[in-house]
Formats: sequence, structure tokens, C-alpha cells
Amino acid sequence: MFSELLQPDLRLMLMEDDQYGLHEFCLALYPAVAAEVLHGLVPTDVWRVLKACDVERQAEIFAFIDPPQQLELVDNVEREHLSKLIEVMSADDRVDLLGRMDEDHVESLLPLVAKAEREEIRKMLSYPEDCAGAIMTTEYASLPEDITVREALDRLRQQAPDSETIYYIYITDSNRALHGVITLRQLILARPGLRLADLMRRDVVAVKVSDDAEEVARQLALFDLIAIPVVDEETRLVGIITHDDVLDLVQEEANEDAYLQSAIEPLENDYLETPVVTMAKKRGVWLLLLAAVGFITAKVNEGFEGVSSRHDWLSWFLPLVLASGGNTGSQSATLVIRAITVDRSATRQKMRIASHELMTGFLLASAMSAFSFLAVMFLFGRNLQEAMVVAGTIGLVVTMGTLLGSALPLIFDRLGMDPALMSNPLISSLSDILGVVIYFSTAILILEMLL
Amino acid sequence: MFSELLQPDLRLMLMEDDQYGLHEFCLALYPAVAAEVLHGLVPTDVWRVLKACDVERQAEIFAFIDPPQQLELVDNVEREHLSKLIEVMSADDRVDLLGRMDEDHVESLLPLVAKAEREEIRKMLSYPEDCAGAIMTTEYASLPEDITVREALDRLRQQAPDSETIYYIYITDSNRALHGVITLRQLILARPGLRLADLMRRDVVAVKVSDDAEEVARQLALFDLIAIPVVDEETRLVGIITHDDVLDLVQEEANEDAYLQSAIEPLENDYLETPVVTMAKKRGVWLLLLAAVGFITAKVNEGFEGVSSRHDWLSWFLPLVLASGGNTGSQSATLVIRAITVDRSATRQKMRIASHELMTGFLLASAMSAFSFLAVMFLFGRNLQEAMVVAGTIGLVVTMGTLLGSALPLIFDRLGMDPALMSNPLISSLSDILGVVIYFSTAILILEMLL
Repeated sequence: MFSELLQPDLRLMLMEDDQYGLHEFCLALYPAVAAEVLHGLVPTDVWRVLKACDVERQAEIFAFIDPPQQLELVDNVEREHLSKLIEVMSADDRVDLLGRMDEDHVESLLPLVAKAEREEIRKMLSYPEDCAGAIMTTEYASLPEDITVREALDRLRQQAPDSETIYYIYITDSNRALHGVITLRQLILARPGLRLADLMRRDVVAVKVSDDAEEVARQLALFDLIAIPVVDEETRLVGIITHDDVLDLVQEEANEDAYLQSAIEPLENDYLETPVVTMAKKRGVWLLLLAAVGFITAKVNEGFEGVSSRHDWLSWFLPLVLASGGNTGSQSATLVIRAITVDRSATRQKMRIASHELMTGFLLASAMSAFSFLAVMFLFGRNLQEAMVVAGTIGLVVTMGTLLGSALPLIFDRLGMDPALMSNPLISSLSDILGVVIYFSTAILILEMLL
Repeated sequence: MFSELLQPDLRLMLMEDDQYGLHEFCLALYPAVAAEVLHGLVPTDVWRVLKACDVERQAEIFAFIDPPQQLELVDNVEREHLSKLIEVMSADDRVDLLGRMDEDHVESLLPLVAKAEREEIRKMLSYPEDCAGAIMTTEYASLPEDITVREALDRLRQQAPDSETIYYIYITDSNRALHGVITLRQLILARPGLRLADLMRRDVVAVKVSDDAEEVARQLALFDLIAIPVVDEETRLVGIITHDDVLDLVQEEANEDAYLQSAIEPLENDYLETPVVTMAKKRGVWLLLLAAVGFITAKVNEGFEGVSSRHDWLSWFLPLVLASGGNTGSQSATLVIRAITVDRSATRQKMRIASHELMTGFLLASAMSAFSFLAVMFLFGRNLQEAMVVAGTIGLVVTMGTLLGSALPLIFDRLGMDPALMSNPLISSLSDILGVVIYFSTAILILEMLL
């Protein structure tokens, strides 16, 4: 939106090498907006713009640039400058960036980074991806408990420039053990002479470094927090995770879940920025797997050659029968997956979920069965027995779909695998195999054995 | 988690009518935790607990209670008490609650609510659901621009108890026109004698009352804000939306999108709390619609009766052929829907999206075609022509799937409808119809006309 308006001006400044204008550009705009305007520019031009202001501001703008462009930029700048930028970046943005760069490049950079930052970087890079330790920032505001509100405000003024947020102040002792939390709002309202120990909240909501990102999001959302502290095994404060990172995380997870649900390996970049070949790989793997399941269905189908050639009208309704099972299965799988990812307590209620699905399945099966019975008789003019075959199969297949769709994600979850891997297409493909068996068995039973 | 530990204690307090204990319970726990412990209790017991503390605290805890239990509670308390509670609730929680209650009940309550609140409630209830006006709160901190930092801090101390957040302070004139914004961090750091006009940021990121919730979430996330101001048509400040409400909103939208993607009408409550009959309705409507499309496929299938009975092996591969189109279509639809809901600018790049999908489609079609050619020849021992029919069809159907899957959501979006209505099952069902036509036409062409 902004970029279209501002980019021509910026290009003009670059052409005229207007240092004052470039400086103003970096300072006057929100970092997020500046980053957006820089989006279409080649790396050397981006650096010319950024270098017009101090390195702190460069780091702020850099943090809002898209990951692919960030990688392009680090490949097109002197190592000395990059190491300075990395020193001043906030700890979480820095780890994000270094985690994406290739290892050799990171190793060649680290010796140039100041020692304190270097050790912190190594430590943060050692946390597994997607756990609290990997997404936290170490720039929090902390104070001891034995000072007064007045002293606290003075000290905060010194800490503020280096803290990601000063709205929550964590109360720690000399071993960094977390004793309490105070909000800036409380400090502003409190009597200046009061001791922090008498003001702080002692039951602090915190997460562990090893907690996964979803747990972090759940806790922060439950308590409506601006930031949540991260503690190590000895409950020492090691970092905080702020609301804006959690929001980004939740958005990303939603995207990933949506992709998995449709059998697509999650993308690292935006849709239009993902090259066609990468895209084809991320989709092709799943499509080929699904096709393999499809060939099993074909084999089963071949096995029923006899009955299907004796009643060749059966194949007309085959897509409908299979789709009914697949659609119900997809619905059940989605509901169960959402229930267990959004609310972990649902995993302990497996029997309740199963019975809930089974009952819903019966209602759906009855409705679908009745509808198809009428359609087969009157729209296709088949006889009573034939309509019974289709309607009966649909009833069975819909019930089977709800069971399969609810059971498979629960089993995956139990095995410690991501239940979201049980995507809609996979559920549909698996239910196709059973659907074919049910359809032709019902046909043999009703058309050839009973009558 | 907490509730299991604390509920027995709470029940004991209720049994012994331990007013002091109940009072402590309300005050000592986080409102979110207290609400969780209250979850299993009957309405009269919940009210006995809540009434042990003052009405402000009641409102805080009440805001964290699940909507279904909230509705149960409002039906089981005197109108006088409820109207007091509503007066002190924060404006956004209040509108949420009143919006869920039935209209008669609301109308019977409002006369008991203080006039100032009553007018505000009527105004907020008048905004359409899911727009900024409906989710904002009116309790923001605002100051005039001509005072000093010292005066500002004093005035803030008075406003703090009534403000949802005091970390952002909005600078308005006597007509409530929004002139700037200052953070509490800036205020703490600034010289006490400085005028706010010299400190404030003038280009405030704001949304309009009529902006939809997704736009609010996008802006707040883009600028990493704790709160975003809401202005009316004359850029007068009318409210703010805070980060915690946006986070809840994004979670809800993710759930809704996941449900829609699998052809389920979005649920109002948690999975296990949705009655079986409601669930069956929310799924059944879509299943019946999909079955109707399935009967069209069956009709088309019937039309190709001749060729399918002359080559009855064709029906073995029918599920595979149709699933391939459906799966590719679902993938494309999901990618396109995510691209246009997450990044609105993608809607202006329809041609780029279409060509991106088409190229990916060709790659996928080639891979799938080659794979199935080999499988049909060697796993099923069919001859060259027959393998060509299946492989050729799969190539065409996969290409068709990508086109259909990307075009339909774009068309829906263009028509002003929610592109997410183009769910995976619907895309699959529609692609089934075309799939049948392509399959049998290819068969006639290769098996009966060319050779």
C-alpha cells in the first residue's frame, strides 16, 4: 500500500545520492513501513538506504524485512558491517536470522561479534526450533525486590533502551531466580516509598525454555499477557516472549495447519515467492503417496471385477459413495485435530470424542441414506433392491468415515506424531479402500445372496 | 489443570459457607484461573462465589468464563445485580455478552443500567458483527497535547483504573480528533518539563470503525502494537482494540477457516460442548449439498454407459483418477485462499497466481502421469493403450484440478463472497464431474477412435 506511493521518491533520492533524504526516510517512517518500501529494491540499494542512518535504526528496519530478502541482504554486505548489525539486533530477531543463514556463513561471522553477544547467540541457537528458548528474547527488564518504587522507576529509565518491553518488570534475585512480576502500570500508581516486595505478584505465569511454541501461545492468550517470562529448569529467568511474536507464531501455525490439512508440506515463504519447482515438490510428495493409496483402491476394485461387471450400473455411483465417506472422514478429522491442538485437555477425553463422533455419524448416515435412496429410485429409475444397495452403502460408509476420521488423528497423537499429518486427502484415500469393499460386499449381499 | 486441584477446596468452602475463604478465592487467583475453577459449578454456586467479592472483581472473572456458561449465569441472577455487573464490565466484554443474549432479555436489562453506559451500549450494539466497532473497547487513555510530561503522568494516575491499557496514550483535542500517540515508555524516559506535542508521534496507525476484524489484525500485527486506535469517519477517536482481543480473534478465524475448508459450518462452542444434533446439522447441510453434486457425477457417468461397459476395467481406476484431480484442486484452493486472506495485495495479482498454479500444475501432472503409466502397465498388466488412457487422464485431471482450485476462490472473492466457502470437498466434488468426462472421453479417443 505505502510502498507504491513512496518508492518513486526513494528511487529519486538514491539516484541523486540525497543522503539527507535517505536519513529522513529511515527515521521518519515506522520501521515496518520502511521495510515494505524497501521490498522491491536490489540489495546494494537497500544497503545504501539503510546505511544513511545509525546501526540501531538499521537493525529495527531490518527486523521487518521478509526472510528471503534478509538472506539476500546478508549475502551482499561486508562481514564487518553485518557483525555490527547482528550485535545490536534484538536477541529473537537475531536468532531467527542466523537460524536461516547457512552454517558456514554464521561461523565466519561470529568471531567478529562482541564476546557477550556471541555466547548468547551460541546458546540460543542450541535450543530446538519451535520451543520457547528459540523464540524468546533476552532483553527483559528486571529489578531486585528490596528497592522502592521510586528507585525502581529510576533504574527502569536506565534499562529501558535495552529492553524489549518495560511494561512488565520481573523481580529476580542475584541468581536470576524469578520471584515476582510488577507491571509498569502498578509502579506508576503506587506510593513512591513502597518496596517492590510488597507490590509484586508472586504467582508468576511462566513457561519453561523447553515448552513448545503452542504452549507459549496458549498461556499468553489465556492470561491476556503482553509478555510471558521463560525460565530454565532451576526457575531462573532466561528470557521473555512478547505478544507480537506470539501473534506472528499463531498466524504461521494457522497457515501450516491449513497447508497440512490439504496435504501440502508447509511453505517457508509467501505463496507467490515460492518458486514453482519448490511448490511442485511440496505438493508432489503427498500427491504421489495419495496416488499409491489410490492404486491399492484400484487393486481392491479389480478384486470385485465379477460383481461390478454383472451390474455395471454400480460404477455410476462409485464416486458418490466414496466421496461421502471421504467428506465425512475429513470433517471428523478436522474437528478432532482442532479440538486436540487448541485444547490439550481434549486428548484425555478420547472416549468422549469417539462416542460424540459415532452419534453424529449415525445422524448423518441416516440423513444421507434417506436422501440417496430417493435419488437412486426416482432420479435414476433403479429398482428397490438397487436403491437399497446404494443407500445402505452410503449409511455404512458415512459411519465408517466418522470413525476413521476421528480415530486416526487420535492414534497419531498418541504415537507422538503431529495429528495434522492425517490430512483430509489422506483420510479420504484411506476411506476409499474401505468404501470399495463395503460397496461391492453390500451389492453381493443384497443383489445376489438375499434375493 | 488448576481446576482439578482447586475445585474440591472451593466446594468445601461453599458447603461450609466460608465467606472469608470465598473472598480470598476471588482475589488471590488470576481471573482466568478463577474462571476455570468455576467451570464445573452450577449457576447458583458460581454466583455465591462471585458475590463474595466486589462487583469490579466479579466483572473481571466473569469476562474469562466461557460464553455458554456466561449465558447460563445471566439467566440465573436477579436483574438488579446483572445490570450492576454490566455497568462495570469493560466495553468490549459487555458487548460480546449482550450480543449473545436474547434481545428481550437485553431490553429488560438496559433500563436498569446507568444512562452513560446505556447509550454507549446501544451504540456499540449497532455496529455490524466482526467490524472494528464491534470488538473495540472505549476505555482508552487520552490526553491533550498542550500539557507537560509531568502533568501527563499525574493525569494518567487518575485515568488508569478505567483504562484497558495505559501503555499507549492517545493525544486528542476537545473534539476527540486524534492528533498523536505517546507510549508510557516515552513518558517515563522524557524530561518532565517537555510538552506532549513535542514528544508525540503524529502519524498514528489507526483503523476505522467499519474496518473488518481481519484488517485490524493485519495492522496490529504489522506494526507490533499493543493496541490500535479506532476512529470514526471524521477521524475522531472512538475506541481501541487491544492485542489480547486480536490474538483471540486470530485463533477463532483459524478455527473457522479450518472448519470451512473441510465443509463444516463454523461452531460457536468448543467441540465437545457442541451438542450432537447441532454438529450433525452443521455438517449435514454441506454433506447433502456435496451428495447432490455427487448425483450429477453419477448422471454423467451413466451417460458414458457404453464405453464403460465395453471396457469394464476402466472403473477400477475411476476413484484414483477422480481423487487425483480432487487432491490437486484442494491443494490449489487452500494455497490461493491462504494467499488472499493473509495478504490482501495478492488479490490484485490474479494473473500471476493463475500462471504460478498452471506451471506447478504441469510439473505435477507430468510426475503423476509417469507414475501412473508405470503402475498401470506393470502392477495391473494392462496394455500400452490402456496405460496411456489412465496416465493421460491423470495428467489432464491434475492440470484441470489446479486451474479449478485456483480459479473458483478467486471468482468467489471477486463476487464479494468468502473465498473459504470453496472448501476442499466442494472443489473435489466439482472436479469429479469434469474428471468423469475427461476419463471416458480420453478412453473413447484412444481405445476406440485412434486404434
